[in-house]
Amino acid sequence: MLITLTTDFGPASRYVAQMKGVLCTRAPGASLVDLSHSISPQNIATAARLLAQAAPWYPPATVHLVVVDPGVGADRRVVAVEAIGQRFVGPDNGLFGWLADHGELRAVELDRERLDCPRESATFHGRDLMAPAAAALASGAELTSLGELIESVASLPTAPGPARSETSIACRVVEIDRYGNVITDLHRSAMDGAPTDDRLRVALGEHETLGLWRTYGDQPPQTLLALVGSDGFVELAITNGNAAEMLDARVGDTVLLDWEPSA
Amino acid sequence: MLITLTTDFGPASRYVAQMKGVLCTRAPGASLVDLSHSISPQNIATAARLLAQAAPWYPPATVHLVVVDPGVGADRRVVAVEAIGQRFVGPDNGLFGWLADHGELRAVELDRERLDCPRESATFHGRDLMAPAAAALASGAELTSLGELIESVASLPTAPGPARSETSIACRVVEIDRYGNVITDLHRSAMDGAPTDDRLRVALGEHETLGLWRTYGDQPPQTLLALVGSDGFVELAITNGNAAEMLDARVGDTVLLDWEPSA
Amino acid sequence: MLITLTTDFGPASRYVAQMKGVLCTRAPGASLVDLSHSISPQNIATAARLLAQAAPWYPPATVHLVVVDPGVGADRRVVAVEAIGQRFVGPDNGLFGWLADHGELRAVELDRERLDCPRESATFHGRDLMAPAAAALASGAELTSLGELIESVASLPTAPGPARSETSIACRVVEIDRYGNVITDLHRSAMDGAPTDDRLRVALGEHETLGLWRTYGDQPPQTLLALVGSDGFVELAITNGNAAEMLDARVGDTVLLDWEPSA
Repeated sequence: MLITLTTDFGPASRYVAQMKGVLCTRAPGASLVDLSHSISPQNIATAARLLAQAAPWYPPATVHLVVVDPGVGADRRVVAVEAIGQRFVGPDNGLFGWLADHGELRAVELDRERLDCPRESATFHGRDLMAPAAAALASGAELTSLGELIESVASLPTAPGPARSETSIACRVVEIDRYGNVITDLHRSAMDGAPTDDRLRVALGEHETLGLWRTYGDQPPQTLLALVGSDGFVELAITNGNAAEMLDARVGDTVLLDWEPSA
Repeated sequence: MLITLTTDFGPASRYVAQMKGVLCTRAPGASLVDLSHSISPQNIATAARLLAQAAPWYPPATVHLVVVDPGVGADRRVVAVEAIGQRFVGPDNGLFGWLADHGELRAVELDRERLDCPRESATFHGRDLMAPAAAALASGAELTSLGELIESVASLPTAPGPARSETSIACRVVEIDRYGNVITDLHRSAMDGAPTDDRLRVALGEHETLGLWRTYGDQPPQTLLALVGSDGFVELAITNGNAAEMLDARVGDTVLLDWEPSA
Repeated sequence: MLITLTTDFGPASRYVAQMKGVLCTRAPGASLVDLSHSISPQNIATAARLLAQAAPWYPPATVHLVVVDPGVGADRRVVAVEAIGQRFVGPDNGLFGWLADHGELRAVELDRERLDCPRESATFHGRDLMAPAAAALASGAELTSLGELIESVASLPTAPGPARSETSIACRVVEIDRYGNVITDLHRSAMDGAPTDDRLRVALGEHETLGLWRTYGDQPPQTLLALVGSDGFVELAITNGNAAEMLDARVGDTVLLDWEPSA
């Protein structure tokens, strides 16, 4: 059985080392896969985004343990969720709200009485409550053996999303990757009616490029181009170069797509 | 069988990659868990501290391979140790001294003649001697098949520890975690007789706070508080904030706890 | 079965997370070992060097998945290679040229029709084509089931290598490790006829040292020394110190070895 880990603990921290010890002790045969321990401290939205992009690629029944928990010890619930054919364990602070958009969802509030938790700190529920729950699921426990069913899980405030007019779309930079590719929140599915050839103008600040290309190498070196990336979102890139540096782009910047109305 | 790795090699270094190759070759079914490869170069004390905090969470018979080895090729011994129900392999330079405080301990000096080490460099015993020994233990070898029993293992110079008077304790900052929590060397078990309510003053430099709280969120945002952390040590934190930055705290700083004598 | 991963995606990136999901889905029992995800972006030579140093330490039939792919979506081939008793999957951009120097080599160009790839982006062949191929090999597929055999794989331009005269060798710094050791491209096997005792002078810029020593601790603290490192290459080090800092050494610098002719 597979357990993935996503935290803001920092790689190589003792918090991760302890949590893995609990998982290995309670789910002896499980394989552990680190998604990230470098989520910026307490950044729930980034963790949710990584999970939403990665989890669908994992096999059915994978357990995803997610500990980004600014409210540890306060009265936020800790939950286990079944959705998209997989299982999720973490604090109910918005990490799992996106799952509600992807079909049926079942969730329980973890009940520490039902988990055999020998000791529990008030400050590290990841190790003392969530890891035991993840290990139990990976070892075959039913979701409902971990706590009472609840109606819904918490959602993050919805981001506004791209703004559409007849002949334009304004979207937002949401990520800059290690190559300097500038990735927006505009999914290809939201572009119906927009041209993809050189009638389409894509602009960030003073810089602009025409059309959507297939891949990074489709233009001469050091040329700006736009394309639909591997997760279906529009991005700006530079053939053999770093677009974020050239454009001085930052997360939150506006990218404008526009085109002439068809005749 | 489980093998954990702790080194100062740097993550993504070829030294780690080679050592894992040896482990996978010699202990084919073993699971590898990285505790840290980011120990600062040759910092034995930090590695010993991480192990002391993490190892107790691992299942019985786990093998912990620890390579922080400033004396490689010099005359320090290389040892395998059984203690706290687990096994440890590394240079005998103080990494394992803390185990002597936790019950019975058996140790052998590794004898390269007894391990089937095809070639050995003078500069990388982690790969050429310690990894083969860790793999042998993980594959079922007895401790005493790896070398001759020795009487004891090397200890690090003992840190002075908190200084106690009738109505005060002076302790030291030993770690600042990724959230900016300021962690001391004062364990809750050394606080007998001190109050934990607001009669207790906890001070670092100009800053002070009263009482020990249960968890990080127990005060209004941006308020300094003291609490007992998840490993039992007193720490300073700020609700929804970074205490180390606000206090300008550094490892080695003194934290003073004091209280009025009871009537 | 074992699959290692080497990429320039950055650790903790969603690209790695997605690729691991594909591997876990398609090769359920496989163990994943990260060699590095910190290759500098698009640096094929560094990735090839790491592989050449690490792969020989892995067990027979290990699958090495290597994704450093500046030409993704362009017309470079994607290949699977059998050599040195192991298997390699990645773009045919020079990553695997070094294998041709180590005995027989068989290679196929991956044929996406033969791999069950449900969808494929033009920008992430690591996830959509190479990971499925690596998983197939790890699950027992024959190399030739993945595509047509090809004659050879691409090589990187050959580095000039050390320059030898009767009484001198000029070599180059190719790596500085985490301890500040300054590692050259001069292998011990290319030193026939050179003395290794104090008749040998080893110099970088203004600094020099005599003879080759056995290990880092063989000189008094803070003393420069030369030695043959754990992979057989000459390096400069400082006992208990950081040679790169003291020498102000950089990758590409020349290191000169010379000696008096024998009488």
